[in-house]
Amino acid sequence: MTQFSFISHLECPKCNERYEENKIQQLCKCGSPLLVRYDLEKAKKSFSKEELSKRPKNLWRYHEVLPVKNKEHIVSLGEGGTPLQPFTILGEKYGLENLHIKDEGIIPTGSFKTRGASVGVSKAKELGVTRLAMPTNGNAGAAWALYASKANIQATIVMPIDAPLITRKEVYIAGGDLHLINGLISDAGKVVAHLVREEGIYDASTLKEPYRIEGKKTMGYEIVEQLGWKVPDVILYPTGGGVGIIGIYKALLEMQELGWIEKGKLPRLVAVQAEGCAPIVEAWKKGEKESVFFENSATCAFGINVPKALGDFLVLEAVYATDGCAIAVSENEILEAQKQVASFEGNFICPEGASTFAAAKKLREQGWIQEEELVVCLNTGLGVKYPETVEIQGVPILQPGETISAKSI
Amino acid sequence: MTQFSFISHLECPKCNERYEENKIQQLCKCGSPLLVRYDLEKAKKSFSKEELSKRPKNLWRYHEVLPVKNKEHIVSLGEGGTPLQPFTILGEKYGLENLHIKDEGIIPTGSFKTRGASVGVSKAKELGVTRLAMPTNGNAGAAWALYASKANIQATIVMPIDAPLITRKEVYIAGGDLHLINGLISDAGKVVAHLVREEGIYDASTLKEPYRIEGKKTMGYEIVEQLGWKVPDVILYPTGGGVGIIGIYKALLEMQELGWIEKGKLPRLVAVQAEGCAPIVEAWKKGEKESVFFENSATCAFGINVPKALGDFLVLEAVYATDGCAIAVSENEILEAQKQVASFEGNFICPEGASTFAAAKKLREQGWIQEEELVVCLNTGLGVKYPETVEIQGVPILQPGETISAKSI
Repeated sequence: MTQFSFISHLECPKCNERYEENKIQQLCKCGSPLLVRYDLEKAKKSFSKEELSKRPKNLWRYHEVLPVKNKEHIVSLGEGGTPLQPFTILGEKYGLENLHIKDEGIIPTGSFKTRGASVGVSKAKELGVTRLAMPTNGNAGAAWALYASKANIQATIVMPIDAPLITRKEVYIAGGDLHLINGLISDAGKVVAHLVREEGIYDASTLKEPYRIEGKKTMGYEIVEQLGWKVPDVILYPTGGGVGIIGIYKALLEMQELGWIEKGKLPRLVAVQAEGCAPIVEAWKKGEKESVFFENSATCAFGINVPKALGDFLVLEAVYATDGCAIAVSENEILEAQKQVASFEGNFICPEGASTFAAAKKLREQGWIQEEELVVCLNTGLGVKYPETVEIQGVPILQPGETISAKSI
Repeated sequence: MTQFSFISHLECPKCNERYEENKIQQLCKCGSPLLVRYDLEKAKKSFSKEELSKRPKNLWRYHEVLPVKNKEHIVSLGEGGTPLQPFTILGEKYGLENLHIKDEGIIPTGSFKTRGASVGVSKAKELGVTRLAMPTNGNAGAAWALYASKANIQATIVMPIDAPLITRKEVYIAGGDLHLINGLISDAGKVVAHLVREEGIYDASTLKEPYRIEGKKTMGYEIVEQLGWKVPDVILYPTGGGVGIIGIYKALLEMQELGWIEKGKLPRLVAVQAEGCAPIVEAWKKGEKESVFFENSATCAFGINVPKALGDFLVLEAVYATDGCAIAVSENEILEAQKQVASFEGNFICPEGASTFAAAKKLREQGWIQEEELVVCLNTGLGVKYPETVEIQGVPILQPGETISAKSI
């Protein structure tokens, strides 16, 4: 029988300490997140592009480089294989001939968090976890609660009371153990930390378990595979906790090791933040390796309202190593881009995703992106999960029997 | 160059009148909807299962049996290829060993209406339409407004004021010409009929243009292809306007003509309705060929609140011809099934979709479905588009600094 996963061990990217992968691990002793390592030399003997082309279009097609060893443990709703589509009309407006969307709204639970939840919950199940806890800005909690319910794992989810209302309902209908907090995700994090410390519950907080990133890295594999194994010039990612961009960078390095893409040229990774919460941008401007807690953060793009990310140093490393950049956009620019994407391209995306289009426009104007470059903007979720970002004005209300005419429009 | 579409003409299923496909057509002179016909004998020479296996997993993979002749006219957001997943946990509860979901929430705009919109808008563009109008219960209007904006077609959308709020916002952000009406979809239909009659605008109402059904039939192709060209025993479909079930039936007959599935055995098609709006069920019980307007209709499953469908006779024909049935479920059964699907299987589905699981449970209890039969329930859209169906009770609100313990849960 062929080997399902080529996972070999966990490794600390800060102090290089190694950990066994077959038992529950959280952070490194030094406080850093752990990364999953695979035996890629062995994997590449059987794991080929040709083999891939025969598999279903969900993220488990990359199972050799995912951490679940027994496929019986997979908890799946058919996630992955999201559309990568050209945006020619908007591209023309922005002066970008090869603008694309990678649309992570088109996935179970409606956000890219699903990838992390499917892989994270599956591995938790494999490790025998029966109870987990996590703080969330909404979408991650919804995804983890839904996948945990399917895996029969009890999930305690703590989210800010200002998080998108619908995500609260997703946790509730999944039967999750939901708590709201009158504060930020950092406050929710403290509640979870206390619960984990006192009761020994599995900590599913961003980067405190090593497997969520493995799910998210599949975005990187998919982008390159969907482009016919061509690497884009620029990938723009809305950056809160940063796991998406870290994951894509990890995928690119793995694909180099697997011999699937050339060593050397990598896409320039762009960390996009809101002006109201831009710790990574501040750090990047100063050439720092880590960020500083961003005081009084606020943005309508709730998912990227993360004042200090545990993996900030990994995000910055990905940006520096690929000659990328970090850029902040305003609330107005976000909402304007969201409207443009819907009205020109037919795609109702979330404000986080809209920030990447606003950033692409700005970077083109600044000459940082060239006209003919192949650009991929990540939309991390559905616009319908953020109804409050669309304010309706001046819509006529008819009574039965009333009519309208073309002239009235 | 190979032929992109094998469309040959339009045909009236009532009086058999033929119409040309290369100009705008709405209803038949006799008042019936028109169906699209293809030269399947010719198509099958080049359009094979093997050829299909190489194509991207969106609905345009079936372009030979879709009406768009020039692929330049395709308006696509990457729709189709939605997950078909086993529901083993819920299946066990219901006594169904082979229960599946076909999840149409995992598609741009978050509902199966997208399929009709992509194909319908693409064909409208090919026919030179610059302005269309339609009544809607929400999701169809949202999908058509978004695709129309991408096609640069002006869309007038009239929807009941009680339709899901988010769909109103989707039309608005797409730049659609939105009108709300203090009444039902039938009242909205009158407004559109007046506009069409007086101003000559393209009528995109359900079944009044022949192409929406072509998009929706791709669900039928996908189900059979995803099952490895095996035909399920039972398909349950939430039935309002009925285009989904009509489309699936049409796809099954076409696949027989193409030689892809055996002639003879077809899945038993089940039209599922809410007790509060069950005109098809009433008609089926009496063995009638058409339904009667259902007075004072009401259900939380807003998409199937259609008191009299133009294509009712086609729905009933599909049910009779496949030895299927029509069944009504209560509001409580719908909400209970919605909760069960989320908490056992991790999928937050819409109430319309939930009605099919409630019906599967009931039909199993009645012995109409056997334990080992292969059953596919269609979820027509995302639960997140219906936040009002989930009422949250008893969720604790913490202040920063407060903690929780496992015992408190």
